[in-house]
Amino acid sequence: MAVRLIALYSQPDDSDAFDEHYRDVHTPIVRRYPKIRGIRLTKADGVGGRLATYYLLAEMTFDSRADLDEALASDAGQQSARDLRNFATAGVTLFVADDDAATDV
Amino acid sequence: MAVRLIALYSQPDDSDAFDEHYRDVHTPIVRRYPKIRGIRLTKADGVGGRLATYYLLAEMTFDSRADLDEALASDAGQQSARDLRNFATAGVTLFVADDDAATDV
Repeated sequence: MAVRLIALYSQPDDSDAFDEHYRDVHTPIVRRYPKIRGIRLTKADGVGGRLATYYLLAEMTFDSRADLDEALASDAGQQSARDLRNFATAGVTLFVADDDAATDV
Repeated sequence: MAVRLIALYSQPDDSDAFDEHYRDVHTPIVRRYPKIRGIRLTKADGVGGRLATYYLLAEMTFDSRADLDEALASDAGQQSARDLRNFATAGVTLFVADDDAATDV
């Protein structure tokens, strides 16, 4: 059982400042999400010699969609949403991937 | 060792037609990528009651970035790129996630 909350952060103007804020401010907030099972960060790489639209892929894992929704509604969830304006000024795209409903083809 | 080619398909006008084309035409092409290790498809779900920007998350796994680039440059890779115009008319965003360089925080 695993459900991922996926956050895709667009390329920031200042990647060093982004990284610092993400590490020192945003990550500690996300760690306080109730029932979160894991946080995995991966820098996006482009294909075909082009810069990727996105800079950072953040995958936050929960046991269920209910746990994920509980996390987003929690104090930490609301605080992290408010914190986006402090560093994700280039934009962020959020969606949920229910790995239990995934198909391997 | 794992590197993912991630394709994010925007919400199509006709999801049934999209699904049919993806299953019957696009997937058989992607399966012919040399050295591809896996193809996982997950429908994206929205958060906060909003429809997700993306409709479908396709994660294609390779052992290395070199294998991934070889796949994209192959006949199947070029054919799949050309096929996008046949069904991904709402848009598709591609990037690479090098899981070996990921950090669990």
